[in-house]
Amino acid sequence: MALHPDRLFPIEPDARGIARRLFSAVERLPIIAPHGHTDPLWYANDEAFPDPASLFVKPDHYIFRMLYSQGVRLEDLGVPRQDGGPVEADGRKIWRLFAKNFYLFRGTPSRLWFEHALETVFGIEERLGEKNADALYDRIAERLTEPSMRPRALYKQFGIEVISTTDAATDQLAAHDAILKSGWDGRVIPAYRPDAVVDASRTDFITNVEDFVALAGTKLDYEGYLEAHRVRRAYFKRRGATSSDHGHPNARTADLPVSAASALFERVLKGASPEDADLFRAQMLTEMARMSIEDGLVMQIHPGSYRNHNPALFERFGTDKGADIPRSTGYVEELKPLLDAFGNDPRLTLVLFTLDETSYSRELAPLAGHYPALRLGPAWWFHDSPEGMRRFRELTTETAGFYNTVGFNDDTRAYMSIPARHDMARRVDCAYLARLVADHRLEEDEAVEIAHDLAYRLAKQTYKL
Amino acid sequence: MALHPDRLFPIEPDARGIARRLFSAVERLPIIAPHGHTDPLWYANDEAFPDPASLFVKPDHYIFRMLYSQGVRLEDLGVPRQDGGPVEADGRKIWRLFAKNFYLFRGTPSRLWFEHALETVFGIEERLGEKNADALYDRIAERLTEPSMRPRALYKQFGIEVISTTDAATDQLAAHDAILKSGWDGRVIPAYRPDAVVDASRTDFITNVEDFVALAGTKLDYEGYLEAHRVRRAYFKRRGATSSDHGHPNARTADLPVSAASALFERVLKGASPEDADLFRAQMLTEMARMSIEDGLVMQIHPGSYRNHNPALFERFGTDKGADIPRSTGYVEELKPLLDAFGNDPRLTLVLFTLDETSYSRELAPLAGHYPALRLGPAWWFHDSPEGMRRFRELTTETAGFYNTVGFNDDTRAYMSIPARHDMARRVDCAYLARLVADHRLEEDEAVEIAHDLAYRLAKQTYKL
Amino acid sequence: MALHPDRLFPIEPDARGIARRLFSAVERLPIIAPHGHTDPLWYANDEAFPDPASLFVKPDHYIFRMLYSQGVRLEDLGVPRQDGGPVEADGRKIWRLFAKNFYLFRGTPSRLWFEHALETVFGIEERLGEKNADALYDRIAERLTEPSMRPRALYKQFGIEVISTTDAATDQLAAHDAILKSGWDGRVIPAYRPDAVVDASRTDFITNVEDFVALAGTKLDYEGYLEAHRVRRAYFKRRGATSSDHGHPNARTADLPVSAASALFERVLKGASPEDADLFRAQMLTEMARMSIEDGLVMQIHPGSYRNHNPALFERFGTDKGADIPRSTGYVEELKPLLDAFGNDPRLTLVLFTLDETSYSRELAPLAGHYPALRLGPAWWFHDSPEGMRRFRELTTETAGFYNTVGFNDDTRAYMSIPARHDMARRVDCAYLARLVADHRLEEDEAVEIAHDLAYRLAKQTYKL
Repeated sequence: MALHPDRLFPIEPDARGIARRLFSAVERLPIIAPHGHTDPLWYANDEAFPDPASLFVKPDHYIFRMLYSQGVRLEDLGVPRQDGGPVEADGRKIWRLFAKNFYLFRGTPSRLWFEHALETVFGIEERLGEKNADALYDRIAERLTEPSMRPRALYKQFGIEVISTTDAATDQLAAHDAILKSGWDGRVIPAYRPDAVVDASRTDFITNVEDFVALAGTKLDYEGYLEAHRVRRAYFKRRGATSSDHGHPNARTADLPVSAASALFERVLKGASPEDADLFRAQMLTEMARMSIEDGLVMQIHPGSYRNHNPALFERFGTDKGADIPRSTGYVEELKPLLDAFGNDPRLTLVLFTLDETSYSRELAPLAGHYPALRLGPAWWFHDSPEGMRRFRELTTETAGFYNTVGFNDDTRAYMSIPARHDMARRVDCAYLARLVADHRLEEDEAVEIAHDLAYRLAKQTYKL
Repeated sequence: MALHPDRLFPIEPDARGIARRLFSAVERLPIIAPHGHTDPLWYANDEAFPDPASLFVKPDHYIFRMLYSQGVRLEDLGVPRQDGGPVEADGRKIWRLFAKNFYLFRGTPSRLWFEHALETVFGIEERLGEKNADALYDRIAERLTEPSMRPRALYKQFGIEVISTTDAATDQLAAHDAILKSGWDGRVIPAYRPDAVVDASRTDFITNVEDFVALAGTKLDYEGYLEAHRVRRAYFKRRGATSSDHGHPNARTADLPVSAASALFERVLKGASPEDADLFRAQMLTEMARMSIEDGLVMQIHPGSYRNHNPALFERFGTDKGADIPRSTGYVEELKPLLDAFGNDPRLTLVLFTLDETSYSRELAPLAGHYPALRLGPAWWFHDSPEGMRRFRELTTETAGFYNTVGFNDDTRAYMSIPARHDMARRVDCAYLARLVADHRLEEDEAVEIAHDLAYRLAKQTYKL
Repeated sequence: MALHPDRLFPIEPDARGIARRLFSAVERLPIIAPHGHTDPLWYANDEAFPDPASLFVKPDHYIFRMLYSQGVRLEDLGVPRQDGGPVEADGRKIWRLFAKNFYLFRGTPSRLWFEHALETVFGIEERLGEKNADALYDRIAERLTEPSMRPRALYKQFGIEVISTTDAATDQLAAHDAILKSGWDGRVIPAYRPDAVVDASRTDFITNVEDFVALAGTKLDYEGYLEAHRVRRAYFKRRGATSSDHGHPNARTADLPVSAASALFERVLKGASPEDADLFRAQMLTEMARMSIEDGLVMQIHPGSYRNHNPALFERFGTDKGADIPRSTGYVEELKPLLDAFGNDPRLTLVLFTLDETSYSRELAPLAGHYPALRLGPAWWFHDSPEGMRRFRELTTETAGFYNTVGFNDDTRAYMSIPARHDMARRVDCAYLARLVADHRLEEDEAVEIAHDLAYRLAKQTYKL
């Protein structure tokens, strides 16, 4: 299936023509990737990717989630077991299983991303299936040995201008340092993700905090803990970080008096009740906002995922195995303590994400269309898809406009999918704009400007890149 | 209004052309009706339907709900009163009242179903109104006397391959036995619906349970009660049942230790508190899943309706009078106990329905796109409509794909509407697929295959028919 | 940007042609404005509007909300401070700030309303920007001095047949009396909005109630309080009122025994707990329904806004500054006490609004498609927009039909936007109907009739105008 130049554009010829013109103006803009999960070691070591299965199947929870839902065992896909037990090691076998079940991805973005990579990176225009599984495996495997397929070469080929990884607060960022020292001119920056030292419901929380203050050289009390955040944020900033990121079960914030916050910290250090853990996460969001005003890091909240919903799978294979399920997420009461404190402060940029699309028009667009500190992140995770991105625009634009949104985030650990995801986002935004032009809500010269803003400028500006 | 061959297809000529081609490949496929509420006595006795009002108005809560909302009294529509008091008995008068108010159904699926039946069954292409009410009444009434209008003849005319009724756990299935004994080659199978012996909030619950265990020949304790389910499920299976169905106020499940479950059973048998009734329903869903793994019945959950919301109407006319109102329904926490126990077991097939469309993209698609045991039932009840079915596909496909859905269920007690409903579902699915082909997310040969799967194969396979 | 005659119509040529024909039949119908917030003094005094900034920027929270969200200070937009402190007084400077940031409104209804007024009232077809800000300011300012720009002349130019204001229960309606006495033939009627004497969480509640009973000449006990409502409703009715309106944080209703309600009243008069305040509001909705059955006023409920979410802004600038944020709003349990009492009474007309679009298909359409007393108000506030109105129809029509909806409400205090808003609503409804005709769900003669009903007849009939 060769990529069609009009894919994802409106079907009506007039609107399609407009979309083509808009897209041609943004198609080749550099990629700004302000939030993602690629491994900084790829850029540091610049080693060849192993076989096709290790590239496309084993690390991609979008892929094995779907296969698993239809009865394929994760062991047979080579997903490593927590206990180190045997799993399929033959990349070709894994690839065949994927190929045989490739029809399951019909209608999904994974299908479109995969085929974009196949064609633009590997020059393959065939549809994957049982019959050509081996042939395509061989072609990809061969290509992967070429120098042009190394991470740094691909970074250039993909047109990336800057990419942010996401890193634990205790990460020493050795890979980032190695990249900087190497003299390579790619820009790979870290983002400060302190969940492991903020979420007191984790079994490793207390150890994490101990390591954290030790690393920062501060005391193990509340003041020392906050100071450790300041120390580590500065450490990240020196390596190029411009943002922090916070993955919480909900969007709750709190703004306790220092004495109460300090007492809470002492309690959670002894093993937190669920309510104390929730309150501590809430308090820390407000503390992070306070620090953002001081140090200028853009703050991101990614709330609303019930992580590791499937305990049997979690025990066998660990986190990020496709068993994270969104749930209803409120923002109006939840964000109020933080917003009461800092919502009117133009020095703060707080980017909100959601997995609960009902919040787009009801809560997020009205909030972002009022508070100077708030911006809306793009359609996220399950909603990083053609219909999901369309709904995001249809449900937020009329209340928040385009300029309270921040452009696209690819949010991925699947390197090959990065250009595909940006391509999709640009197409869907151009399709949306083309419809507004075609029914005369907007003029085409404005749409060209907006398309450019959504594809490039807003991400660069919002994330201070 | 003659049925237009392009009805419900995309408006754009290219996409419409694709939809025509897809639909032509599935239009005449046999009907698989794995879940519905037709009366098995119709097929057993094969008697003529009475007058047009008894066919189209009196039994159809979609119809009299709308008329009632605009001030028409149910008595004047011939809806029987609980106290046996007088209601309109003249079918022609009822029909005239329906005809006069037929404009109220503009834009509703009821209108489309009704006109499909008028034209395809009765050869009437006129729009119903006050002026032709009597003439159409006469034409329909006359047709109803013909042998070709008997239930068994219509079953053939409609192209039904198999149809499931829904039957109480204590139903002896005499009608099904009569059908089997008659030698007729239609396939009418029961489904096990134990709500009356599971919902302890019902005033008749205790009596129902007593009858239930008596019928099964088991003891009136928890073990006997569970055994009675096994006995009755086997009884249903012997008459062709392949599924159970569970209509609960919410999707809560529980997996109590046997001792706690047994104690709960003892309590609810003495009159249940609301919380105990809720917990007992929750526990029983898990027990039903356990039995499904043993006996292979496909399990369906239809949650989220606030039944009999209008107490005055309920007292006067009883259940199923259009006063069941959906409410917010969660699945993520609610299903967890059941899924923890059986979600990874490929022997279980659990089909989830919803009346809360917000759960499609937020909860149901992510759950079904992960757990091997889960499948998504089609757009249900109020959402069994062109826009409702379109939203279902747009909100679930990108995360769950097509193959975690189960094809169409007509879910109706209105016999005449069955081919109309399947026709609508096939058209809307083909329209959706045509748009994916037209904007190059899918190729047409794949879309043909999916259209066939959605119209026929998935229902047959999922429900083991 | 000249207004395009096809704006907001479907893009497909066939559907666009149908939309044109439908719209041409309703474009020039008189405006029925049964619910809004224009100032009755405008019509009473018929004075010229001051400068362009006072007309378009300072009073429109849709406008300054967006500017504020992007860092513009309300002081710089001339929004008056609560403490009387200095704010920008130079209309031209305010206008320039608006012009410079006009691009922020791309894709919003505010943009479309503004340009509709510019062109149809001021004859300006240019797009506002920094370069032409002064020139346009001068042209508008000059026009505003003409007699044809006075409120009464505009009322005629706009084609208004009747317009309702919204007035506090203690308002003496002097402006309405002055209009009546003036002999002018415009029809400006009040609506009874008793929130200030119903919401016991307000700091001025007790004073308000004391003034209220004093004004009505009744006693300060529960019976006297209820009687005061009857007295004031009659006072409003004599000045043309046909409706009451209730802006509550949620849709909760209650139907307490008189003794309990009376005791509750005594408690809230001493300072209400949050729960008592909520319960009192709930009880009063049911009392208002009871009085509506007596006096025939149509009842409207506008629930679900978290008012004054931003305390710093509230303290500085007061209410209605764009800081009202919707939240999740349920109707099924909430309305039950009121509906149990009066839901089946055809003498009651209760119009429901929502800011939570998830309730459209899940709760509101099923409720309105059943209860004779219920009707659905149009897409409200943030959803009074092209996409919002489209979603309203797509999510309600299939279950509630067209005839359980009530036509359009402009709900605005921005006089210039009234014809623009009705124009938009008529266009979006015609576009929706055109799609139903184009895909053969409706015939065109029916669509013409519905378009007329939605644009004119239903509002007139439902609100008894």
